[in-house]
Amino acid sequence: MQSANQNIKPLTTKINEKGNLSIGGCDLAELAKKYSTPLYVIDKETLVSIAREYKNAFKSYAKFKPKFASKALMTSAIAKILADEGYGFDVVSGGEIYTVHNAGISLNNSTFNGNNKSREELNLAIDLGIGRISVDNFSELELLNEILEEKNKTQKILLRVTPGIECHTHEYIQTGHLDSKFGFDLTQIDNVIELITQKYKNLEIMGLHAHVGSQIFETKVWSDEVEVLIKEIKRIKDKFKIELEEINIGGGLGITYTKEDTPPSVQEVANVVLKSLEENIKKYNVKEPVLYIEPGRSMVGTSGVTLYTLGSSKQVPNGKKYIAVDGGMADNIRPSMYGAEYCAELVTKKDSETKQKVTIAGKFCESGDILIKEIELNNPQKGDILCVYNTGAYGYSMASNYNLMLKPMMVLVNNSQSAIIVNRQTYAQLVQNDIIAEI
Amino acid sequence: MQSANQNIKPLTTKINEKGNLSIGGCDLAELAKKYSTPLYVIDKETLVSIAREYKNAFKSYAKFKPKFASKALMTSAIAKILADEGYGFDVVSGGEIYTVHNAGISLNNSTFNGNNKSREELNLAIDLGIGRISVDNFSELELLNEILEEKNKTQKILLRVTPGIECHTHEYIQTGHLDSKFGFDLTQIDNVIELITQKYKNLEIMGLHAHVGSQIFETKVWSDEVEVLIKEIKRIKDKFKIELEEINIGGGLGITYTKEDTPPSVQEVANVVLKSLEENIKKYNVKEPVLYIEPGRSMVGTSGVTLYTLGSSKQVPNGKKYIAVDGGMADNIRPSMYGAEYCAELVTKKDSETKQKVTIAGKFCESGDILIKEIELNNPQKGDILCVYNTGAYGYSMASNYNLMLKPMMVLVNNSQSAIIVNRQTYAQLVQNDIIAEI
Repeated sequence: MQSANQNIKPLTTKINEKGNLSIGGCDLAELAKKYSTPLYVIDKETLVSIAREYKNAFKSYAKFKPKFASKALMTSAIAKILADEGYGFDVVSGGEIYTVHNAGISLNNSTFNGNNKSREELNLAIDLGIGRISVDNFSELELLNEILEEKNKTQKILLRVTPGIECHTHEYIQTGHLDSKFGFDLTQIDNVIELITQKYKNLEIMGLHAHVGSQIFETKVWSDEVEVLIKEIKRIKDKFKIELEEINIGGGLGITYTKEDTPPSVQEVANVVLKSLEENIKKYNVKEPVLYIEPGRSMVGTSGVTLYTLGSSKQVPNGKKYIAVDGGMADNIRPSMYGAEYCAELVTKKDSETKQKVTIAGKFCESGDILIKEIELNNPQKGDILCVYNTGAYGYSMASNYNLMLKPMMVLVNNSQSAIIVNRQTYAQLVQNDIIAEI
Repeated sequence: MQSANQNIKPLTTKINEKGNLSIGGCDLAELAKKYSTPLYVIDKETLVSIAREYKNAFKSYAKFKPKFASKALMTSAIAKILADEGYGFDVVSGGEIYTVHNAGISLNNSTFNGNNKSREELNLAIDLGIGRISVDNFSELELLNEILEEKNKTQKILLRVTPGIECHTHEYIQTGHLDSKFGFDLTQIDNVIELITQKYKNLEIMGLHAHVGSQIFETKVWSDEVEVLIKEIKRIKDKFKIELEEINIGGGLGITYTKEDTPPSVQEVANVVLKSLEENIKKYNVKEPVLYIEPGRSMVGTSGVTLYTLGSSKQVPNGKKYIAVDGGMADNIRPSMYGAEYCAELVTKKDSETKQKVTIAGKFCESGDILIKEIELNNPQKGDILCVYNTGAYGYSMASNYNLMLKPMMVLVNNSQSAIIVNRQTYAQLVQNDIIAEI
């Protein structure tokens, strides 16, 4: 079976009886009319499907515990759906911790990651009973132990390490040391273990955590990463007589933004990870560790699309045709920021096939605000609804109020029903923190 | 006199009696303590000084009307300060229009720009009595006239044109046509004038509008732009017997992020613009037009700094030293997005000079979240406050809630006083639009 992350479109995408595109049984033209645009649409079936696919792919490994990387997309509704599927959360800020808690979800199945957690955030995490804190550096070891001493509590922790594997999508490199702002270098681990065993008595070390990159297509990085972590567990066991029992291999599985993207399926990743685990457990003679993974983009990317309405157009004499939509770089910064490419199509049936090559511009006052540089659309007209695929991850989560534009609404679709899960911002909310001062 | 835009630091920046950095007479270490960090600080004196500098530099030209480009930084307090200085506003969205109005400022001195204004935004602008609408394309001409017919109103408009001048900071090119999503090509103007005179009777055309770029250091672009616009006015006058009486030359004056940046002063820009105006008015024998300019970055960039607290640090073995601050790419996306460089320094006096070369990392879960790649700081220690200069423009305005981090507070400083002008977001605000749906 093809994984959702190998699809450009949500799994439920269909052409309905009217000839319109539908997702989750909902006609996209009707959704645009009902809720107006720009509109983020999340297909529950695709989301739940890939959530289950991860669990299924790793089901032979009893100690498998998936956490959703909240930074890809965190709203109360998304948190609830994934918690109901048995997921914990990789949270990286007080705001993400607050949101999970506010959705009525216990934090005890979640891990707090990040290279510079504040005292206030650590306090909040501990008070809400966070399952694990992945400690990133020496400063944090000290701060965390100090906070725990004040509270007279202990906390289960992981150590974030840089495994010496750096991954840039198709390629990766392995090095002794890694120039990264995240985590301990492996040469620093002895010192950390000594500090924890001798000085920071409120920290209970459970395991090691690494994360090798983002939008990865090459499974070998995870197999190598597993070996690095198991080998390190063995080294620590031999030297300190402490056997760590958990490894967190992070996330990073890529998705299919365009046909050029060829990520492996979730099952392929699972096979490689589980094979490496089995081999290295034997090779290094350690116990089967608890296995955490932290997928983000691959969980929510394909589930989400953004609907825009085509507006003004401009034909440059002897040049491009620009068609502007009613959103752009504030609701999806990836094209401006990373040169990211997306597939899109019009949602309504056209009487004839009249393909036109156009550039989709955003409405923001910046010439770099171009959503899609070149796309062929079928007879695009003002008022048509454009569906941009694969915007579930890092769309809403990186959204700004640039140009004081309102953040779009988000709706969930499922079984021919739709429901608002994030209301559109209001003008009043834009200025709710503004104060006019007379000094 | 040196213009504020030629300074790296706000004009009031001093070392106070404690040896600490102060701005607006306020000790930055005390500000950080009082309001906590990350903290945007705006120096009223620098802002008002450059606002007056623009007016002063152009004072020989009676028909000069400056508008502040709101997209650089728009809050109720900033709007009020600049309106009090006689500025109108270049607004580009319903949100910006709403904010100006909400600050108690009439819109009749403001211009509504943008390549894809929505019906709702145009309605709002007209209902609030917007001074000018700069019409960007044929679709908008039609939509605007339709709305005005419904309201039985007329509206003064400008035409946004692409003057065939493209500017990339130091260099620029002049072409016949310009590949830009904004504005009418000059070859389309005849058609526009015909439509307005014969069909779109509710539009009252006042003049032409252009904008050539951003962070510009080369004054010649404005002198050429003035000529293009005046020449076009002459052409229209000859052909249609209509003499347009307003030109809007946009903004774009650069600022000094680092010592490598060498923007001209406001006076130098004014001299070039006024000389070109004088020459071309004579050359083409047209009336003195009203002159609008729309500075943004050069008005607020230098007035603003961001204070961060130094947190965790990481020494890569045989490599870089990373020091993380409590903010990053969500409060200032420019380093991640444009590779933008900034100057910064610690705000407190140190007993000895112990320079250290470090990398300032943000706290966001993304390896690209690096604020300053290499900087020499004086004995940096955890808890120290770092002042990053020149963040007044496109810092807060492009801020997101990535990683569900809260947008920082903004304070105004002046005459040794400080006042909050934007309150820090709260966790409750992060989820105020969230809804958990059961479908």
